[in-house]
Parts: sequence; C-alpha cells; structure tokens
Amino acid sequence: MSGYGGSRDVAARVLAGPKVAALGGGHGLAASLSALRQVAGSLSAIVTVADNGGSSGRLRDEFGSLPPGDLRMALAALCGDDDWGQTWARLLQHRFDSEGEMHGHAVGNLLIVALWELLGDQVSGLDWVGRLLGAQGRVLPMSLTPLDITAEVSDGAGLVRVRGQVQVATAPGTVRSVALEPSDPQACPEALAVVDDADWVVLGPGSWYSSVIPHLLVPALRDAVVTTSARRLVNLNLVAQPGETDGLDPVGHLDALVRHAPDLRIDVVVADRGSVADPGRLEARAHDLGAALVLADVARRGVPGQHDPDKLARAYAEVLRPS
Amino acid sequence: MSGYGGSRDVAARVLAGPKVAALGGGHGLAASLSALRQVAGSLSAIVTVADNGGSSGRLRDEFGSLPPGDLRMALAALCGDDDWGQTWARLLQHRFDSEGEMHGHAVGNLLIVALWELLGDQVSGLDWVGRLLGAQGRVLPMSLTPLDITAEVSDGAGLVRVRGQVQVATAPGTVRSVALEPSDPQACPEALAVVDDADWVVLGPGSWYSSVIPHLLVPALRDAVVTTSARRLVNLNLVAQPGETDGLDPVGHLDALVRHAPDLRIDVVVADRGSVADPGRLEARAHDLGAALVLADVARRGVPGQHDPDKLARAYAEVLRPS
Repeated sequence: MSGYGGSRDVAARVLAGPKVAALGGGHGLAASLSALRQVAGSLSAIVTVADNGGSSGRLRDEFGSLPPGDLRMALAALCGDDDWGQTWARLLQHRFDSEGEMHGHAVGNLLIVALWELLGDQVSGLDWVGRLLGAQGRVLPMSLTPLDITAEVSDGAGLVRVRGQVQVATAPGTVRSVALEPSDPQACPEALAVVDDADWVVLGPGSWYSSVIPHLLVPALRDAVVTTSARRLVNLNLVAQPGETDGLDPVGHLDALVRHAPDLRIDVVVADRGSVADPGRLEARAHDLGAALVLADVARRGVPGQHDPDKLARAYAEVLRPS
Repeated sequence: MSGYGGSRDVAARVLAGPKVAALGGGHGLAASLSALRQVAGSLSAIVTVADNGGSSGRLRDEFGSLPPGDLRMALAALCGDDDWGQTWARLLQHRFDSEGEMHGHAVGNLLIVALWELLGDQVSGLDWVGRLLGAQGRVLPMSLTPLDITAEVSDGAGLVRVRGQVQVATAPGTVRSVALEPSDPQACPEALAVVDDADWVVLGPGSWYSSVIPHLLVPALRDAVVTTSARRLVNLNLVAQPGETDGLDPVGHLDALVRHAPDLRIDVVVADRGSVADPGRLEARAHDLGAALVLADVARRGVPGQHDPDKLARAYAEVLRPS
C-alpha cells in the first residue's frame, strides 16, 4: 500500500490480493476505486489532468498547476475507514459557498495546490494528502504537466475542432476523436512504474473521451499500458453521456477506445448486464480485441448511470482473483 | 494535553509541570507558546479574535467567521516536533502568492474556516487542526463571535475614535484606551474553564492594545482572570510598538493594562533586563500591583523587539516551577 494505510486489514490484503492500477478520472474513477479498495492487495489510481473548469480550472489558471480536482476525488475515495480518515475526506470534498472570492473552491483542491507549492513535487504532495487520509492506496497524475483536450466534433454540417475539457463536454454535436495539447506530455514516472508492475490495469468507467481515453494519448503511458505484463480490464459505462458519447452503445465505446490506441489488447471487458441491449454483438467485439466479456449486475439501483461500488467490488473480486 | 500530543515526553511533563493558560495574539503569543511548551505540563492558548486585516479580514468578511489568523499562528507554534507536525505547520503558515484571487491567503486560515463550516463548532474545528499537527497544547478563541477593537486616539488636536484593529494600529497619534464592539461578547466557555483551572495565567507579550488588553475587555474572561486561583504573570514587550504604544515605557505598559482592568492583581512581571531603563521605578510599580519583578535576558540577539523562545523558556522555567 505504498507506505500508508497500514492497518492489519490492509497488510493482509497486500499479501492476498492483486496489484491494481486504475486509470480514469472524476466520479467514474472514484466509484471504481471504492470498489477496488475492497479487492486489491495494492491499489494505485492514475488520474487525468486535463480539467479546465470550476475550482480546478481557476487554480490551474492562477498557479499554472495541474488541475487538482480529479486527484482530490480519487484520494477521498481511498480514505481510511475510521472517523479520522472520513472527516478529513469530507473536509477535502467540502466546497466553499459564499458571495465572495472563495465560492466554489473545494478545500482539498486548495490543500493539494498548497502542498505542491510547499514541497515543489507533485507526487510527494499527493502522498502527503494520502497519509493525512490514511488512504488505502496511492494517487498519481497521468502527466506532470497540465493538459488540454481537443476534440473533433461533428455538428451535422461538418467537423469542428474544440479545445478544453469543459468545451468538449458541452459542445453540440458528436465527438469523433480527441487529442491532447501538448501532444507528447511528460508522463508521471511513478505512474509508468505502477503500470509496469501491476497484475491488473483497469480502464474506466468514466467520461469516455475526457477521463478514460486521455491516458492512452500520453505516449509513454500508452506504451506502458500496451507492453505491461498486467492483464487489462475495460469497465464500460452504463449509459451514453450527453455531450460526450451521445449515440454510442457499448460496442461503440470499445471502438472509440481502440481507435485511439490501435495496438491495445484487452483481457476482460466488464459491462452491466442490464445495460447491454445486444450481448452477443458486444461479446464478439470483445473477442476481436482478445477479451472475455463479463456481464454482471453493477448498476446502482435508482440512480441511472452510476455504478454501485459494492456490486462492482463483487464483480471485480470474481474477475481479479488470482488465476 | 487535552487529548492530543501524546508522546512520552508530553506525558512526563503533564505530571511534572504547571497548567498554563497563555492569553494574547499574533507573533508575541507565538513566541510565548514556543517557550511555554518547553516548560508547561499542560498548555492552552486563548487567542484574540478582533483582526480585520489581510487574509483573516477577507475570510471574516466573506464567511462571517472568527478571524482565523492568530489562532493559526498559535496552533503552528504548538506543532509536534517531528517531520509530520512540522510539515503540516509549514503548510498552515504557507501563504499563496499569485496575481489572482487566492493571493495573500494563508492555507491554515482556509483550513480552519472550512473545518468550522464542516463541523459547525469553532472549538472542535481548532481541536482537529491541533490533532493534525500533533500539537502540544490546545488553542481556543477568547470569544465565539468576531470582535472589533475601537480606540480613542490622541492626535495632538484632540481625541478621535478609531474602529478596527488595522485602523487602530495605523492611526496617527497615541492610543489612550481601547474597547470592544460588541462590548459584551460571549466568551468561549472552554477558555473560561481553562483560566479557572490553571496554575498560571500568562498575559503578553504582543501588540499591547490589540492582542493583550482585549482579553480583559471580554467581561466573563476578565472576571475569570481576576478571580482564578492561578498566579498571574505579565510578560512585557521589549520595545514600544509604532502606531500602538509609541512613547510607552515598561511602566506605561503596566499602567495601560491596569487602566483597562482596575481590579486585576498581578503576581509576577517579567521584563528583559536590557530593555528596562529604570528597573527601580518598574519594580516599585509592579509592587503596587502585588507583583514581583523578574528581570531576565529574554531578547533575541540581533532582532530588536523579538523574544528569544529558548531564553524565554529558561526565564519561565525559573518563575513557573512549583513552589
């Protein structure tokens, strides 16, 4: 558990469970981490750093830092089970609500940026927050430089190019492809090492074009994901996301992923049983990519589009158990 | 040590040393706490909450909260000796430096205000920061409501009334008296209990009119200081402070204090040997108030006006040792 965590439970799992690297961002990654912490022996999150909106976007503009928001959410999802870990996680997630300059800032975003300033090292700063939370796992950025997502969006009349995560997520039309600016950013060395050393690499769920695919656009990270001896699991979203993946069915999600990383092989595709209209077609497409399809009940009851972390943990436990 | 701290060292001191309540604010209180933590068995700081400038003033305006800055400085002065405590203390003291909206905010101020919002309790929020730091002592506000200092300032032509700590500290002329708005604020109950239970109550050093005297203007706190069975120590400033106490010699400082709390009895007055021009006159004035004068070498070499925490600790050790 990378030096923190440290309860007897965690120590037992380090011995028993697989080493997992989870790639993503936002709420999708947080749900996946809440599930994986119940299953993994060692868990590292590798988080997208292309957000340009909200509190993260303001801090990125003001300090030239990585956008901290997705990193903060991943850390909170890994917080210790006790009152200490949960209270600090709640504080990190707390958002100021006022008529003034602090309005909308998440406390954890400010704390992370301040630690980066104080320590002069992004990974070290995130590790300190992890230690504060008693986090059961480690959180790393996918890149050491802030990135922007650009997209080619088909708006009916033709293709338009859109720049910025917020703009991509809200532009009318259908996203055809995404790219990063800069196009060859420096990957986080610790993230590369984690992927290399993992038993499993988990991609998704999450905003497909802005949180999941970006990892495969960082050249060194894509190479690490392609060449690692780890098995690769793709966890599909439950629904298409308005503004990002309108009209994409599960096969369309897989196609979009592979279009951005043609040499990627996949070992397992996990999908929610109730969210796949044509399992045979999805299974055939998964097989093309070298993957087995696992259909499981992983949707949160009554909240369309969200994964249930406990159900997801049961599905992961089945798939990730040592062979 | 109020439930935190907890090293064997601290436990030994709890048994050996006196229970101390230190009243003040700003850098003066921080220096006093850095000294007292080396001597006291149990240590509580009771901190002024009338600041209206800088980061504290902005947060007070934005959230209607207590100004957190003096509380933050006191907490940092009590941080654990290890890398953990010192790193979080440095983070609390870190100030954002930018061209944007965060410029000038101290990270600890934001953390404290956020904990107050999250927990809905000022004392509990400060205790959480104390636990984060492994603080060797407790920090309490003198009042549960933010206060303003007003002053009557003699500007040569006559008396003018000035409102606000910043305004009082910078108004041209000589401060004659200070008062609080509101004039009968709610004292912090835990602070009253600490004073009541103390072996020693320490007043000063610090900005005399804006950090030391205000405690005696909160009626319930003044009553507690006057009636406690604890002994009372006044630690005089080394120099007059421009804008606040121009022209006041050590006797003038004692006079100003007693003018604002006529029924206050003092047991010991501590002053720096090299900073008192007429020791006989100061000793006589101290005797009038029931106090012994202790002259000691407590000034920091090469930094006029500042106490040396280690020298001050040696002086405190002499004075506070069990009789």
